[in-house]
Amino acid sequence: MILPPQTVGARLARVRAATRAAGPAGIDALVVTHLPNVQYLTGFSGSAGAVIVLPRRALLVVDFRYVTAGHALASTLDGHVTLATFERSYDEALVDLLRREGSQRIGIEAAYLPVARFNAISAGLAARAPLPLESPDASPALVPTERIVEGARIIKDAVEVETLREAGRRLGVIGRRVHAFVSEGRTERSVAADIDAAMREAGFSRPAFETIVASGPNSVLPHARPTDRAIRVGDPTVLDFGGVYDGYCVDLTRTVQLGAASEALQHLYAAVAEAQQAAIAAVRAGVAASAIDAAARTVLERHGLAEAFGHGTGHGLGLEVHEEPRIARPSSRLPDQVVEPGMVFTIEPGAYVPGVGGVRVEDDVLVTDTGCEVLTQ
Amino acid sequence: MILPPQTVGARLARVRAATRAAGPAGIDALVVTHLPNVQYLTGFSGSAGAVIVLPRRALLVVDFRYVTAGHALASTLDGHVTLATFERSYDEALVDLLRREGSQRIGIEAAYLPVARFNAISAGLAARAPLPLESPDASPALVPTERIVEGARIIKDAVEVETLREAGRRLGVIGRRVHAFVSEGRTERSVAADIDAAMREAGFSRPAFETIVASGPNSVLPHARPTDRAIRVGDPTVLDFGGVYDGYCVDLTRTVQLGAASEALQHLYAAVAEAQQAAIAAVRAGVAASAIDAAARTVLERHGLAEAFGHGTGHGLGLEVHEEPRIARPSSRLPDQVVEPGMVFTIEPGAYVPGVGGVRVEDDVLVTDTGCEVLTQ
Repeated sequence: MILPPQTVGARLARVRAATRAAGPAGIDALVVTHLPNVQYLTGFSGSAGAVIVLPRRALLVVDFRYVTAGHALASTLDGHVTLATFERSYDEALVDLLRREGSQRIGIEAAYLPVARFNAISAGLAARAPLPLESPDASPALVPTERIVEGARIIKDAVEVETLREAGRRLGVIGRRVHAFVSEGRTERSVAADIDAAMREAGFSRPAFETIVASGPNSVLPHARPTDRAIRVGDPTVLDFGGVYDGYCVDLTRTVQLGAASEALQHLYAAVAEAQQAAIAAVRAGVAASAIDAAARTVLERHGLAEAFGHGTGHGLGLEVHEEPRIARPSSRLPDQVVEPGMVFTIEPGAYVPGVGGVRVEDDVLVTDTGCEVLTQ
Repeated sequence: MILPPQTVGARLARVRAATRAAGPAGIDALVVTHLPNVQYLTGFSGSAGAVIVLPRRALLVVDFRYVTAGHALASTLDGHVTLATFERSYDEALVDLLRREGSQRIGIEAAYLPVARFNAISAGLAARAPLPLESPDASPALVPTERIVEGARIIKDAVEVETLREAGRRLGVIGRRVHAFVSEGRTERSVAADIDAAMREAGFSRPAFETIVASGPNSVLPHARPTDRAIRVGDPTVLDFGGVYDGYCVDLTRTVQLGAASEALQHLYAAVAEAQQAAIAAVRAGVAASAIDAAARTVLERHGLAEAFGHGTGHGLGLEVHEEPRIARPSSRLPDQVVEPGMVFTIEPGAYVPGVGGVRVEDDVLVTDTGCEVLTQ
């Protein structure tokens, strides 16, 4: 993905501002190793790589496989990002580069960097004799940080909104066609194959997760995997699928009814549709994410389905298929985020009643200044 | 995946033997958080979970989504594995369980456990007041370990060999059909979609990695992604794809020539085919992995293509698509493994010459007592 240089500059500036706020002593370099964060900051989408964010520039560190692609990418970025490559290993390269820059307080991404890499980088920084001009006590320290780049990613910029809007439009088109894939005697697995083929055909590079096709009794399992079960007349079938388009993930669920629905099942369809509408209507800048969840939950409770809705109402979308914000009940462990323009997330209430069936409906929304835009219609 | 209880018992026994060898002080519990390792030890294949390997049993720790499936699984395992679930978070649950067991030296998987989780578990273990019967200095310690479960996984057991053999057979059938997908004017992306659909149809649950279709000038890039380029007469097209079958990954490459090949390209095809045959012939128990790589490399060197083969000859296959052993040149940083019966890996030499084209051929082999069995023919 080639990003406009001003976009990369703005993203790096937001991350630098966040690093300045990271504790009283601050940090003078941030080592980014989580690949979606590397991609966000540079546009680089290889299967390995790292970024060192420094006060005045950033280094994109890649191995020999990506030297040509990395140079081509960096040359478009107006000096915001410089390429660095190496002979031996990523961790040795990071040690050498950090040392050359004289970084002293070095942030790492604690939610992702494994203990072994932390220890290897620490040992590498400690093992080198100080340069003649360094004071002997100036040994660099690794500082665990969390959510620095993620905090920037939660608000999508113009390039991302454009990509997610196009991705949502393409997924929405498939959503209108999925009824045709469901017919008597077809297996869940073959319907999943059709959906995956339709996503490829529509320009998605890959599924964002393993496509869910859950029919009849399987529909009550929110995380079912497709089986060889043949779909029967009377079944509800939950189809939950997502695709990666130009690096960005979108996610959609439709529940398709084959033949007539029982009265109890009709009740589920109506209640879930109403809950989804209520949640979408509740999306606007300034509300708590938990208030959107409550809007869906209240409708289902009113229909006597409080116990039938065991998961959250939605999750953020972007370079990852599950990111912030979390649209769910308040939790003692996780923050309840305030919704802001530029956030993109799913709205996916469901109701699952063993013996009756499961129904879920999911669309993706972009928070705007005046409410929200449904991306997948 | 439901594993026979004796298989689970044998795998746990191998892991316990390895933990006893892990340093002079040893460890009395191993916390397994890398999901392929969790699956190997229990058969559990959810998207989150952990295992605590104790001297006499193992605990499978799952969240509320997997309680039903986890209980069903554990009930088949004859007491080798007990289910544990929790109310709050994985890390708090691990702390509670380790404390209840009285574990003092607790191994963690340093190559995978992120710094933040290491710190949270450490702090949790330290924060609890010691029980009345504990001596005050008996504070439990986390011990970084590496390659304990991976060391067991490198030799496939009978259940795994059966699965990989069936997976290889199914992928080999697709390998014989791929010529039909390549025709003039078709885009790389649409050929990739056909391959992915064929894998689904053949019973693979998902691609093991993003399918590579690299035609004409793109064929010289070993890690190319499919583009909208239309395939032309005269092009070589590298098709590299893999599937996950019952949890296990297999991997195959064919290079398809559309129309006549230039003389230079014919030379590449012949040299790469010869290199692959030489490498397969070199596979037998007791040889160094680097000797198999050298067998392929020597052939390509003899054809003047030493510089055209920039990657290794192969990689192990199993629950992950890249695992041990590494079939490559000796490295100062990584061990050169001795090949043993039960190892499964790819043999995939290639030659890439800008202006001429790229050719790669890949099959999967199982090391036997007398040589090897090609799984993908």
